[in-house]
Amino acid sequence: MFEKLNEIKVFRDPIHSYVKVEYKIIWDCINAREFQRLRRVRQLGGAFIVYHTAEHSRFSHSLGVYEIVRQLVSENREIHNALSEYDRLTVMLAGLLHDLGHGPYSHSFEAVTGISHEQITGRIILEDSEIHRILANGSPSLAKDVASVIDKTHPNQILSQLVSGQLDADRMDYLLRDAYFTGTTYGEFDMARILRTLQIREGKLTVKESGIHSVEDYIMARYHMYWQVYYHPVARSYEAILHAMFRRYRELLELGHESIFAPMDPFMKNEEVSLEAHYQLDESCCNYGMGLFTQCGDPILRDLADRLVNRHLFGYQDVESEEDVMLMQKKVEEAGLDPRYYLLEDTASQQPYVPYHKDKENFVYVLCSDGAVRELSKCSVIVSALLNAEDKKDYKMYFPKELD
Amino acid sequence: MFEKLNEIKVFRDPIHSYVKVEYKIIWDCINAREFQRLRRVRQLGGAFIVYHTAEHSRFSHSLGVYEIVRQLVSENREIHNALSEYDRLTVMLAGLLHDLGHGPYSHSFEAVTGISHEQITGRIILEDSEIHRILANGSPSLAKDVASVIDKTHPNQILSQLVSGQLDADRMDYLLRDAYFTGTTYGEFDMARILRTLQIREGKLTVKESGIHSVEDYIMARYHMYWQVYYHPVARSYEAILHAMFRRYRELLELGHESIFAPMDPFMKNEEVSLEAHYQLDESCCNYGMGLFTQCGDPILRDLADRLVNRHLFGYQDVESEEDVMLMQKKVEEAGLDPRYYLLEDTASQQPYVPYHKDKENFVYVLCSDGAVRELSKCSVIVSALLNAEDKKDYKMYFPKELD
Amino acid sequence: MFEKLNEIKVFRDPIHSYVKVEYKIIWDCINAREFQRLRRVRQLGGAFIVYHTAEHSRFSHSLGVYEIVRQLVSENREIHNALSEYDRLTVMLAGLLHDLGHGPYSHSFEAVTGISHEQITGRIILEDSEIHRILANGSPSLAKDVASVIDKTHPNQILSQLVSGQLDADRMDYLLRDAYFTGTTYGEFDMARILRTLQIREGKLTVKESGIHSVEDYIMARYHMYWQVYYHPVARSYEAILHAMFRRYRELLELGHESIFAPMDPFMKNEEVSLEAHYQLDESCCNYGMGLFTQCGDPILRDLADRLVNRHLFGYQDVESEEDVMLMQKKVEEAGLDPRYYLLEDTASQQPYVPYHKDKENFVYVLCSDGAVRELSKCSVIVSALLNAEDKKDYKMYFPKELD
Amino acid sequence: MFEKLNEIKVFRDPIHSYVKVEYKIIWDCINAREFQRLRRVRQLGGAFIVYHTAEHSRFSHSLGVYEIVRQLVSENREIHNALSEYDRLTVMLAGLLHDLGHGPYSHSFEAVTGISHEQITGRIILEDSEIHRILANGSPSLAKDVASVIDKTHPNQILSQLVSGQLDADRMDYLLRDAYFTGTTYGEFDMARILRTLQIREGKLTVKESGIHSVEDYIMARYHMYWQVYYHPVARSYEAILHAMFRRYRELLELGHESIFAPMDPFMKNEEVSLEAHYQLDESCCNYGMGLFTQCGDPILRDLADRLVNRHLFGYQDVESEEDVMLMQKKVEEAGLDPRYYLLEDTASQQPYVPYHKDKENFVYVLCSDGAVRELSKCSVIVSALLNAEDKKDYKMYFPKELD
Repeated sequence: MFEKLNEIKVFRDPIHSYVKVEYKIIWDCINAREFQRLRRVRQLGGAFIVYHTAEHSRFSHSLGVYEIVRQLVSENREIHNALSEYDRLTVMLAGLLHDLGHGPYSHSFEAVTGISHEQITGRIILEDSEIHRILANGSPSLAKDVASVIDKTHPNQILSQLVSGQLDADRMDYLLRDAYFTGTTYGEFDMARILRTLQIREGKLTVKESGIHSVEDYIMARYHMYWQVYYHPVARSYEAILHAMFRRYRELLELGHESIFAPMDPFMKNEEVSLEAHYQLDESCCNYGMGLFTQCGDPILRDLADRLVNRHLFGYQDVESEEDVMLMQKKVEEAGLDPRYYLLEDTASQQPYVPYHKDKENFVYVLCSDGAVRELSKCSVIVSALLNAEDKKDYKMYFPKELD
Repeated sequence: MFEKLNEIKVFRDPIHSYVKVEYKIIWDCINAREFQRLRRVRQLGGAFIVYHTAEHSRFSHSLGVYEIVRQLVSENREIHNALSEYDRLTVMLAGLLHDLGHGPYSHSFEAVTGISHEQITGRIILEDSEIHRILANGSPSLAKDVASVIDKTHPNQILSQLVSGQLDADRMDYLLRDAYFTGTTYGEFDMARILRTLQIREGKLTVKESGIHSVEDYIMARYHMYWQVYYHPVARSYEAILHAMFRRYRELLELGHESIFAPMDPFMKNEEVSLEAHYQLDESCCNYGMGLFTQCGDPILRDLADRLVNRHLFGYQDVESEEDVMLMQKKVEEAGLDPRYYLLEDTASQQPYVPYHKDKENFVYVLCSDGAVRELSKCSVIVSALLNAEDKKDYKMYFPKELD
Repeated sequence: MFEKLNEIKVFRDPIHSYVKVEYKIIWDCINAREFQRLRRVRQLGGAFIVYHTAEHSRFSHSLGVYEIVRQLVSENREIHNALSEYDRLTVMLAGLLHDLGHGPYSHSFEAVTGISHEQITGRIILEDSEIHRILANGSPSLAKDVASVIDKTHPNQILSQLVSGQLDADRMDYLLRDAYFTGTTYGEFDMARILRTLQIREGKLTVKESGIHSVEDYIMARYHMYWQVYYHPVARSYEAILHAMFRRYRELLELGHESIFAPMDPFMKNEEVSLEAHYQLDESCCNYGMGLFTQCGDPILRDLADRLVNRHLFGYQDVESEEDVMLMQKKVEEAGLDPRYYLLEDTASQQPYVPYHKDKENFVYVLCSDGAVRELSKCSVIVSALLNAEDKKDYKMYFPKELD
Repeated sequence: MFEKLNEIKVFRDPIHSYVKVEYKIIWDCINAREFQRLRRVRQLGGAFIVYHTAEHSRFSHSLGVYEIVRQLVSENREIHNALSEYDRLTVMLAGLLHDLGHGPYSHSFEAVTGISHEQITGRIILEDSEIHRILANGSPSLAKDVASVIDKTHPNQILSQLVSGQLDADRMDYLLRDAYFTGTTYGEFDMARILRTLQIREGKLTVKESGIHSVEDYIMARYHMYWQVYYHPVARSYEAILHAMFRRYRELLELGHESIFAPMDPFMKNEEVSLEAHYQLDESCCNYGMGLFTQCGDPILRDLADRLVNRHLFGYQDVESEEDVMLMQKKVEEAGLDPRYYLLEDTASQQPYVPYHKDKENFVYVLCSDGAVRELSKCSVIVSALLNAEDKKDYKMYFPKELD
C-alpha cells in the first residue's frame, strides 16, 4: 500500500485541465531535482523557430503523460481492474519519468555524442539519484520495474504499451500539447473517447470498435503534425545547423583545439558521462555555450552558432538527383566554404512517414462488435489505405541562402 | 511610402490565429538580432513555477502587441482614417519594439541593478543597433518617433495610448496570452469587440457605449489575472528569492569577493552597461550563472540559487502586525540564518490592486449613445463600484519552510 | 440500492464533454415521454431572434444540470460522503427533472395564463405520468422527495441548494450553455474549480477560500449574460409582442370570439389544465397556432403574430419620464392603434440586476483559510462592491418602428 | 453599384465569430419572410436524436455559407480581383439563398413527395416572393443569375464552385457548424488556411500547395462527420421511421382516407405545390401534424408517429445476406406487423462513403510550387490512398426492438 497525500494536489494544465496527484511518491518524484530539471529542456527542438510559441518544456509533457496514464489506470474500469495497485503505480511512474534523460536539443546532440536519452533515463532511475532514492523508499523493486516498463523489458507488455506503444500516453500527450503550443489544429483528436474505449483483451491492448474513428483521427493527427510541425523545412534547417555546430565543436576538440565550453566537453569524447555532467548541461547551459561559440576563434563554429542565435538559417532545395547535390557542392566550394558544414542533407529515409507502424509488437488491435480481436487495418478502410500508400519522401539539402 | 512585401508574411499564433506582416520594415525588425533575442527572455517571471506551462517568451508577446496595433490601425476604419501611413507604421513599430529592453527576470533583476528595461529599450532604438539602422533607413525621423511613442513623449498621445494606455494593445495581448499559456480562463475577454468599438473622439481614445460590457469584462480579467497568476504567493516566493540572490551577489562583489559570473557583473556596479552586455545577458545566460552560483563558496548565494534551480522555495505567512515579522525574525536568527536573505517581506503597497487606474491621462472614455463623451465609471455600474472598493492588500513574509 | 446499468451510458455534450448515466432509473426518466417532450421546448425565449444560434432546448439543459449534480455528488468527495445513496439519487433526479413543466415561451405565456411551470413540474412528478411511475417503482417515497427538493421544501436544504440556490447546477449549466450557443464569451467561468472547492460546513454549502476568484468570475458572468443576452432590447421586444399576442387571444376568447387554435384554449381560462393539454402544447404546437393567428380575422392578433413569425419587431426607446410614454401613447392612438397592444412597457423593476441575491437562505458562504465560515461579501472586495452598487435600471417602451 | 449600409451590420456567430453584412440587398434578403422561415427548419434531420444539442437551424447555416463566400470574395485578394462587384454580390447571394427551398425533414420528406428543395429554391428566387422582389430591385438580371449559380448553369463555373463544389462554402460551413453543435471534434479543420490558399488558375479553383494538409484534414473531417454523425445508425433509424410515416400517410390518402393534417396534403399528391403551401409547412407545422398522427385512427400511422415523438425508435442489425432480411421479415409478419412499415432497409449504396468525389467537374486542383496545376490526388499521398480504398458499406435493417 502506497501512501496517499492528505488532499489531492493539482497542477493547472491547458491540455488536461488538471494534472492530479494522489500518491505521495508521485509528488516526491515531481519535486526531485532530476525532474525539475526538465523545466529547462524544451519539448520541441527547432520547431519554435517556425512556430514561435512552441516554447513548452519536457516538464509539462512529462506531467501530461503521467496524467493520461493516471486516467487510464484509474478511470477506465477494465484497465483499472486488470492491474494491481503496485502495477498501476509502476506505470504512472514510468509515464512521469520516461523522458528524464533528455538533454538540450536531443535530436541533434545525441546524433553527435552517441549518448541516447534512453540510456540516461535508465541510469537516473537505477543509479544514485534523488529519484532513485524516492523509488527505492517506496518499494525495493520499484526502480527496476519502472525502468523496465520504460525500456520495454517488463514481463507485462501492456504496461509498456500504455506508456509508449501505438495508442500510448506519450504520443497522445505530445500531439495534443504540441498542437496547443504551436497554435495549429492539426494535432487534435478525441482523446477522451480513445481512453474510454481502450480495453485489455487476449493479453493485448485493444480498442473497442466504437472507438475506431477516434483512432483514425489520431493517426491522421500524427501524420499532419509530423509534416506540418516536426518535419517543417525551416525547423529541419535549424536542426541541421545545430548538428553541424556540435559536429564542428567535436572535431575542433579532436583536432586538439582548446575547450571553449567545458560543460559540453565530456559529451564529445565517446566516454560515459557522469550524471552530474548530464544534470548541468540543460538547455540554458547549452545556449550559454552557443553564445560563447559566437565569439570564438574558429570561423566555422562561430558562424554556425551565430546563425542559430540570430536566426540566419540556411535556405533549402529539394534534391531530385545526386547531380543537384554535386552542383550545389561546387557552388559551396567556390564560395570558399567547407561543404561538410555548409551543405547539409536531410533525406526522407531518416524521417520516414509512418502514420501507423506495422511491426508485430506495435499492432493496434480492435475488439470488434462480434467479439473477435482484429488488427486495426482489418477494420478500418482508412488505415488499410494508408498502409498501402507509398512513402512520402522529402529529400532536401540545406546551404547558405546567398548561394541560391 | 514604405515598401511592402511581395506577399503578406504570417506567423501562426494561438492568440490571434495569425500575425500578419505587410511592410518590409516590420519584417526586417523582426529578423534583427535585438528582436530575436526576445526569444530568450520569458514573458512571466516566477509564474512558470506555479503554472508549469507559462513558458512563453517576450518574443511572442511582442508579435502579439504588434498584431493588435495592426488590426486597430488597419481594420478599425475610424482609427485608420485618423492616422497617416507614417503614424500607422510608427505605432505598429512601437507595439513591436516596446519590450526590446527586457532582460532576464526583469522584475527582480531591475530592482537590484536599478537599470530599467524602458531605458534600454530607448537606447536600442536610438543608439547603434540593427534595429536602429533599419528604422533610420526607413525614414530619418522614425527611430525618434517610435521611441517617443514608447516613452509617451510623442505629441500625438493617441499613439501612445494604443500601445500602452488603458485599453491598450500591450495589456490586451498579455492578458489573453498569459491566460492561454497558464491554462486559466480568467484572462479571457472579447477583444474583437473592444477593437471594433474603439473610436477617436474629442482627441481621446473612446469606446462606443455598446462596447462597455466588453470593457468591464476586460477590467475583471485584469483583476483576476493579477491575483490568480501574477500575485500568486508561490510566484512571489520565487521572485523574492530571486531578488535576494541578486542582492547577495551584488553585496559579495561590493565586499570585494571575486566574480563568479562575469556577464552579470557590469549590471551590479551602478554604471551604465553597454548594449553588448545587455544582449549577452539573456535568460539562458542568467540561468547558467545561477547554475554556477549553486556551486560557489558563499553559503547564502549557493543556497538561494539552489532553492531556485531545484524549486525548494520559501514558505509564507500573512503579516497581520509588525509583531508577526519580529517573531519570525527571531526564529530566523535562532536558526543561524541572516534575516536580510531569509526573511523576505512583500507588502501590498508594492503590488496594489488597480483594476482601473484613475489618473487623468489614463481615463477610459465612453462615447455614449447620446453623443456625449464620458469617463467610464460614469457609465458603468460595475466600474463605478470597483473604484469605490477598498484596496485588496496582501502583506506576506517569506522564509524557509522548516521554520514554520 | 438502486439498479445500475450494465455499462455507463453517455451523451456527447459540448458543455460537459459527456453526460454520464450510471443508474437505470435516470436512464428510464430520460426516455420517458414527459422528458423527451423537453426536446420541443427551447431554452431561451426571444434570444434566438438576436443570437441566431441560440436554438437549444430545455432537454439539453436538463441533461446538463443533471450532469453537474452528478459530478458534485460523485466526484466531490466531501459532498459524496455527506449524502446517502438515496439522497444522491434524489438530488440527481431533481436536477434532471426540475424543468419538466416548462411550456413554450414560458416567460410570456405564464404571465398571461397564470399557470407556472413550477406547478406543472410538481404535478408531473406527483400525479400519474411515466415519470411518476418510474420514480414510484424505484422507491415509494422517491417522487415526493424529488418534488420537495425542486420546490425547496425538502428537510435537507443542501439538496435544494445544489440544484438551485446560489452556486447551483441550474445556473451554472444555463450560463455556460447559453454562452456556448449564443457564441458569446460572457458566460464563461471556471466551473470545474467551483465544483472542486464546494464543501458542506456548518450545515451550509460553502466554497473554499481558494475558489473565491472563480465565484467572482461566475457572478460577473451572470451579470454579463443578463445584460448582453437575456435583457437584450431586441429579445425583450420579441417577448413583449409575444405577451401582447397571448393577451389578445385570451381577450378575444373572453369576448366570446370563437377558438382559433384549440390546444391553446384551456390555458386561457383560468382553470386547471390537464397534463395531457400541457404535453400537447409544446413549442412546435404553439408555433403552428401562431401560424394560424397570422391568417385569422382579428387584425390585432393577426398583426402581432405576423410580426413574430416574420420578424417585424417593435422599435424601442428609453423611458426617462412618464411624459415620454404619454407622448408616444398619443402617437399610437393617432395612428389608429390600440396602445394596450402597440405600446408595451418593460421596466427595470421587473428585471432587476442582482448579481448576487442577498437574502438569508441564499447566501454564499466561504470557508476561510482560518477555518471560519463567512458570507461571501465579507471575503470578496468585488462582491462587496457590487452589493453596494446602485441598481442598473432599464425602462423601455416598445412600439411599431414606423411611429418613431 | 450596389447600395451599402451606413454601418456594417454583424451577427454574432460561434463558427465565424461574426457574420458581416455590408450591402443593403443582403440585409434585405435576410429580413425577407422566406429567409426568416429557415429559422423554423433544423439543419440536421435525425441527428438531434443522437446528438441532443444538434438543434441548429438552416437559418444559421445559410448565414454561415454567406459569410464564407463573403470572406473569399473580399479578403482573398486573388479571388476578389478576378470577379466584378456584380459577380461578387451574385455569389454572396447564392451562398445566402442556396437552401431557401428546404422544408421539414427534407431527406425523408422529399423521398416521399418527389419534390426537391432545389426546385423550390429556384421557384422562390425566380417567382413572386419577397426575395424575388428584392433581387429584381437590385438589378433586373440578378434573380436569374443567383438562381443559375445555385443550379450550376451559370456560365462562370467558378461562382458555383465557391458555393457548392468540392472546397465549397456550403460544406465548410456545415462541417464546422455541425461539429460545433453536436459537440464532436471530428468536423474541425483549418478553414482560414484553406480560404487563404485558394486561387483561380487556368479557369479553375485551385489550392496552393502549402494548403494541401488543410485540404487533407478537411476531407478526413468530412469522412468522419459522415460516419459519426450523418450516418449514425440511430439517426438513420429515426429517418427510416420518418420516411415510413410519410409513406403511410400518402398511402392512406391514396386509399381514400380522409385528411388528418391538411397542410401536408398538397405534398402527397404528385402535383406542383404552391409556394404558400411550402411556406406554411415548416418544421413546427410538420411536428404539429405528427402530434395529430399520434392520435389518429390508423394503427400504423399512429404507432410510427408515436415512435418518433416519444423516441421509441427501431432497433437495427447489419445485413450480411438476403437471408437475414427474409428471416426478419418472417418475424415481423408473425408479429402481425406489415413489413412495408416495420422492416426498413437502408443500404450502403444509398449512402456511399466518398471522402472526395472523383468526377471531372468536381476535381480539386492544386497549384504546385513548380507552377503546374495538378489534380489533388496526384499531390497527396493521403488522398491518393483514399481514392483507392474500397467503399465502406453499411447495409442495415431496422425493425421494432421487441423482435430482436
